[in-house]
Amino acid sequence: MSRDWLHQPCAAPDAAAAARATARQATLTKPPGSLGRLEDIAVQLAALQGRDRPTLERVQVCVFAGDHGVVAQGVSAFAQAVTAQMLRNFVSGGAAVSVLARQLGARLEVVNLGTAVDPGLLPALIDARIAPMTADFTTAPAMTLAQLDAALAAGRDAVQRALAAGARLFIGGEMGIGNTTTAAALACVLLGEAPQRLAGPGTGLNAAGVRHKAAVVARALALHAAHCADPLEALRRLGGFEIAALTGAAIASAQAGLPLLVDGFIVSAAMLAACRIQPAVRDWLLFGHRSAEPGHERVLRALDAAPLLALDLRLGEASGALAALPLLRLACALHGEMATFSQAGVAGSGP
Amino acid sequence: MSRDWLHQPCAAPDAAAAARATARQATLTKPPGSLGRLEDIAVQLAALQGRDRPTLERVQVCVFAGDHGVVAQGVSAFAQAVTAQMLRNFVSGGAAVSVLARQLGARLEVVNLGTAVDPGLLPALIDARIAPMTADFTTAPAMTLAQLDAALAAGRDAVQRALAAGARLFIGGEMGIGNTTTAAALACVLLGEAPQRLAGPGTGLNAAGVRHKAAVVARALALHAAHCADPLEALRRLGGFEIAALTGAAIASAQAGLPLLVDGFIVSAAMLAACRIQPAVRDWLLFGHRSAEPGHERVLRALDAAPLLALDLRLGEASGALAALPLLRLACALHGEMATFSQAGVAGSGP
Repeated sequence: MSRDWLHQPCAAPDAAAAARATARQATLTKPPGSLGRLEDIAVQLAALQGRDRPTLERVQVCVFAGDHGVVAQGVSAFAQAVTAQMLRNFVSGGAAVSVLARQLGARLEVVNLGTAVDPGLLPALIDARIAPMTADFTTAPAMTLAQLDAALAAGRDAVQRALAAGARLFIGGEMGIGNTTTAAALACVLLGEAPQRLAGPGTGLNAAGVRHKAAVVARALALHAAHCADPLEALRRLGGFEIAALTGAAIASAQAGLPLLVDGFIVSAAMLAACRIQPAVRDWLLFGHRSAEPGHERVLRALDAAPLLALDLRLGEASGALAALPLLRLACALHGEMATFSQAGVAGSGP
Repeated sequence: MSRDWLHQPCAAPDAAAAARATARQATLTKPPGSLGRLEDIAVQLAALQGRDRPTLERVQVCVFAGDHGVVAQGVSAFAQAVTAQMLRNFVSGGAAVSVLARQLGARLEVVNLGTAVDPGLLPALIDARIAPMTADFTTAPAMTLAQLDAALAAGRDAVQRALAAGARLFIGGEMGIGNTTTAAALACVLLGEAPQRLAGPGTGLNAAGVRHKAAVVARALALHAAHCADPLEALRRLGGFEIAALTGAAIASAQAGLPLLVDGFIVSAAMLAACRIQPAVRDWLLFGHRSAEPGHERVLRALDAAPLLALDLRLGEASGALAALPLLRLACALHGEMATFSQAGVAGSGP
């Protein structure tokens, strides 16, 4: 499989649409700037959708799931079998992402990239199995080149399905026991950061567990860091199937001009990889939620990102992005539907 | 008119429902605590609604509007006629609160407590006119006792209409040119705080305007502060019709056991007055948005409140509370609809 597609250019945001949206904001019946970040969102979405009045009826949520060899090092509070169990929960409607997507009328897709315990072929589960799990990156690269290519392509394929479904926004989510360890390792090598800065409690480690996790990441860095000048190689050695799929999805989304609403720590690590591969990807990202996972802050800083929400979520599954989706929709509705001063016969400010 | 009703006891939150909701949270298919503040909201609403699985389909938004005599001192970037113009905009659907309420399926009511320019009797506008405006509190008490009673009762009446409509949550909003000055004066006297700490730019004053506003508040405090040991007297001397109505609404809401989602600086100043009159009102308050108006932070601290959002809104009209409403609804949906570990066949954490 080829990875040439990764280097095709990204789409350009529409500066003229943004300028028209900014001009419209100034005419609406409110003190200038008084809707704060909701004004900024409307203008940003106008630029990204290339329309003066953006809309977000159709939203595609895609949860990528995969297992991680590094779990053998005892880095998670949960057993590896839970990844496959949660896949079943996603598609049967009982998981947080299932409830959120249903409530918000977003289309939910679940992509199986490979789990230690195979959940089998379930209806509504997209089969993109690569292997039961990545290799344990404390002893070997997490993926072969072919596996990396397959994972990146699975992300691209998900974006193409979203476009075919008429989505105006893409939300990527993830599930994979152990993947805060993987995200920490990947972010460490991309940022030149120390493991103890980016390894956190994940789904519920205590202080000793976090120290052990940081030590595991340190061993991985000792093995791979010298070979990671190329971000794709960093992703191959220290990533995961679902993280590589999210990276591919972000690049494909930016290439197609489809804005992407970013979830928490793990998705943000994938966005960091995507922006290292193609810096213009950053233009297409909006950020939903600042995670309780401490490493997220550092990754957000590197991406110059200020998420809309900070509600102490640390679940993944796209839950932080979905929690922010209503704000994007309200921003669009206010922008599109408020009366102007002249329409409403309201006097503006000033002398 | 009597104000005895203000001292009737507040309802008590249902601790047993909260305990059952907390127990249910621990069984849902997610790492314990990983939904952060969305878990806390579900438990709090369970306590306030007295049901294990709270719901928020029916929400009543009531915007109280009134004009302020202190505007004669030149404290606003907008002309006083705008209050009545905006009332018309609220009921004709073009204002921010109109768009938000429509998008969120919340019932919107607009109560006219008295404006300098009379908007007349419009359909969908509740007529509770007291006077064209309050007195200029730099020279006299803002209200007579009879006016205070009428404003408080207008708030209580709005809550009774909300209850009759089956609302499970009440959101109070406000409109009144000059009312950040009023809210600052009231909060200063209730908190023993200096005017320059609580006077801010409001709808768009520059630095000189803010200094002038603080000086106006200081003159009001010099006249009234010595007579404001009683919070009701503070409200009469330094409040506004819409602020007193919000105070009355909060007390009536707490008495009836109807949770109230608090908007920004002005509503929070009214909540401070309500909690000084009846401290148990605090139990019934949830906080939506931390305003860009700098005085809000100080009032929130006094109320021990941490709003869900901080999006730099500074509009009023209940916009900050309405922006947070989807989070409350998502919290209820997650709590009520997620599968438990045993239902979904998912293994929990730990050894």
